[in-house]
Order: sequence, then C-alpha cells, then structure tokens
Amino acid sequence: MKRSHRVGAICQILAESPHRIFNLRYFCDRFSAAKSSISEDIAAAALAVGSTGYGYIETLPGASGGVRYVPDISPEKAEEVQDELCRLLREENRILGGGFLYTSDIMYNPAIVKGMARIFAGRFKSSGADHVATIETKGIPVAFMTAQLLNIPLIVVRRETKISEGATVSINYFPGSSERLQKMSISKRAAAPGSKALIIDDFMRGGGSIKGIAEILSEVDIQVAGVGVAIVNIEPEDKKVSDYFPIVRLGNVDEMKKTVEVTANRYWE
Amino acid sequence: MKRSHRVGAICQILAESPHRIFNLRYFCDRFSAAKSSISEDIAAAALAVGSTGYGYIETLPGASGGVRYVPDISPEKAEEVQDELCRLLREENRILGGGFLYTSDIMYNPAIVKGMARIFAGRFKSSGADHVATIETKGIPVAFMTAQLLNIPLIVVRRETKISEGATVSINYFPGSSERLQKMSISKRAAAPGSKALIIDDFMRGGGSIKGIAEILSEVDIQVAGVGVAIVNIEPEDKKVSDYFPIVRLGNVDEMKKTVEVTANRYWE
Repeated sequence: MKRSHRVGAICQILAESPHRIFNLRYFCDRFSAAKSSISEDIAAAALAVGSTGYGYIETLPGASGGVRYVPDISPEKAEEVQDELCRLLREENRILGGGFLYTSDIMYNPAIVKGMARIFAGRFKSSGADHVATIETKGIPVAFMTAQLLNIPLIVVRRETKISEGATVSINYFPGSSERLQKMSISKRAAAPGSKALIIDDFMRGGGSIKGIAEILSEVDIQVAGVGVAIVNIEPEDKKVSDYFPIVRLGNVDEMKKTVEVTANRYWE
Repeated sequence: MKRSHRVGAICQILAESPHRIFNLRYFCDRFSAAKSSISEDIAAAALAVGSTGYGYIETLPGASGGVRYVPDISPEKAEEVQDELCRLLREENRILGGGFLYTSDIMYNPAIVKGMARIFAGRFKSSGADHVATIETKGIPVAFMTAQLLNIPLIVVRRETKISEGATVSINYFPGSSERLQKMSISKRAAAPGSKALIIDDFMRGGGSIKGIAEILSEVDIQVAGVGVAIVNIEPEDKKVSDYFPIVRLGNVDEMKKTVEVTANRYWE
C-alpha cells in the first residue's frame, strides 16, 4: 500500500470516529507497516485534516496514547453555516400564524444540522461533558449529531413517562411561553450520577425548557457543562438561564411585511 | 501540497459529506492543482476508502458529473455491529417488568447508532428515497444518521400536533401492542407530494406503528421506498407489514432466568 493510500484511509477512519483514540499499533497492524512509516503517515494526515477547516488531529503521548480526530470549525466555515441558517430563516413562506416560524425542514436537514453540530462540538470540545442532553423532539438531530462529533452518548428528556424508560424522575416546570405548567421526565438509567451533560436544543425563547432540563438533570445528580441553542429569540431580554451559546439570534418576525430579523453570533470576533 | 496531503484531504471532505457530488474543478481550485493530478488523487482516494470496509467512492461521468462517497458496510463490519448489538441486548440488567427491555442507552449511543445507520444506508442506497421518515422519539437518532449518510432530509411523524408544524394531517391507528387507538400527525410541509420515503425505526413488534407511518405518508402522497428496523420482535409472527429489513431479531425475554434471545440478520448470506 502506498503512502497516499494509507494517509487517505487514516483520514477517513479518523473522520468516521471523532474523538476516538487510535493507537499507532492499530494502524501498523491494519496496514502491515512499520511504526516509523505510520508516524509519517499520521503527520501527513494531520496536515491534510488541518487544511479542511473541520478540525484537527491530536497526538496523545504515553502508553495509553495515540491519535484522535477533534472536530472543530474554522470561523470561515462557521460563517457559512450561520449565513445559510439566516438566509433560510428569512424565507417568508416559513412564517406561521402567531409569529411562529416553521423550522422543521432546517432542523431535519443533515447538511445544516451537521454544520450547527460542528459549531457546538468545537465550542464545547473542552467542556468535559460526558453526555449531551436535550428534550424531545425537534432538537434531537442537532443534539445527537453534536454527541456523535464529541463521541459521547445522548440523553433525551421526555414529555411523558414511557414503560420502556424504566424508573423515571419527573418535574413540573413553566415553559415560559405560556403560564401552563408542563411535565418532563428522565430515566434514572440515563447517566451515572456525578456525570456532566451539555444541553443542546434547537430553539430558546425565555429559557424555561432549558432551565427545566438543568433542574431535572440536577435531580439525577448530573451537572450542566454548557448550554448551546441553535436559535435564540432576542425577546424576552430576561432569560431564565444566563449562560448559553446561540448560533443565531432571532429578532422581530413581521407577519404583515413578511420579514424576519435574524443575525449570526460571530462569537470568535 | 503533496499528493498524500491532497488524498487525505479528499478522503476527509468526501467522508464528511456522503452522497454529495463534488466535481473535479472543486478540488482543482481548492488545491491549486491540475485536473490530471486531481484525477490521480481521486483514484488513490478511491483505493483508500475502498480498503476501510465503509463504502466506496463513485465517479459520475458527464458535465454534471464528479465524485461522491457512497457509505456502505462490508459483511465483516456489519457482523461486528450486529454482534455488539446482540451482546448489549443480552445484558440481564436491561430486562424491565412485562418483558420490556431498556434500550435507550443503545439507541442514543453514537458509535452503535452509526453502525446501524451504515447498515441501513448500504442496504437502501439504491432505493431512490428522497427522505427518511420515523416516528418520535427513540428511533430519531438512527433515522437521522441514516438520512445523513444518504444525504436526504428526515421527516418526523409526531404523536401530537404542534403549532410550529403548521398545517398537519392526522390519523388514528392501532399500535398493536395494545388495542388502544393512538394518534399520529405529520406536517403538510414535511415533503413534496410524489416523493419517496424510507421508514426507519428502532423497534417493531406487530408492525402497527410502521403501518401507521406508511398510511400517514400516503395521506400526504409520499410513497414508501423501504422499511428498516433496528430490532424486530419475532412474536407475533403475523406482522402488519410484510416487507421490512431488520438488523437483529429479538426472541424470548425470560424475566425469571434473566435471559434474552437475540440473533443477527445475516442478510448477505
């Protein structure tokens, strides 16, 4: 096998399993090559991956060491994702009655979701989170894709308890958009007590749901490692959570003029 | 930039965007290289990707042509995924009361979900599906990951209608596990009439939910292009859908002896 083939295969294998550590021996065995060759291959793979704007290859020293692919996103690529998201949100035919926007096509589109997840995975790569947590339903794809890029499991908080969840813990909370009390529940098996979760959701207005997720996580002794939301509504100014990271900010939705105000969060500036 | 760097970068770029067609010009511009060089790079990338067991690079001729990465899975890799799934399902501590199994940790684990999605994406790569459809909640990650590998959008059928879904179509159906009538709804904007959807779900017993999804899709003029389920329960023998593709088959769950019977679907044999 030629160097270029090995480098290509290493890039693909690492890209398929982000944040998973592969030791050199794995590649030596796989390609029947010497450690010195594989070291040079990995150096070339690191240059290749570094040039794409989608993260980097990290070398971990020591006996348990090896290499892993850390997904991230360059400001240029992040800007592309944000601009595309803004462009889509401004489409007038997604304005529903009551100032609501139809966003399912965005939140269920793999290319856009992967871009958003890359922004979250880059932002929270050092958060120490063991899990990504979300609440059903529309935020599940972006939360799951973030979990995949960070190589940690997902926790889905549910609206109703299900027999297949085993023993659950439930809370009542105020979503904020209405004053109607709602319920959410989490399986007691969802994560080991003492672990840390990153909360990811598709949309936040007052922050009631996010605060509810943080509360229910604390009931099962899981700490919040960070909060990421794809779209945050500028109003109300007073949110129930103070520390959150949005990808774009949604302003006024004018049903009559058919205009949507939305701006990107240029967080690297 | 050396050949090995370009080949590595091409492998990563293609792996990050499955089923997306890149024309040669894209890589020529990106790497400031001649078409003849890029053609050789792509040939090397195709060999590299072909060696991993995770699909292949396809060359499409003509003016609109180019190259794309088609995710697939070799029988050896599929067997690894299936055996891991069987091993996990046999763990005695996941047996809940009433013969139910706790499977959320499996369905929310990115590595296992990606393996299962690869099996579906390979199996249905020529189905002509424009969408992947599922019903909330537990099947969303594997359905979404399959959609990502096939580069087509997801449709999520919901249990309740939501204002943010716009106009919806609803049906009542018998889930099969109980004789209690249930409701499901789909946004009229979910997909263009005349398109085709692949139904993917985490679990199927009698097939009532899958039959319901097929019915509601037909109400909005979407045709079923195939059905994939991660786990199918062997009982009842008579299912409400006849044509489905399972990854593993679940037999008897013995609460007293703490045993779970599960076998892999060695579909390539």
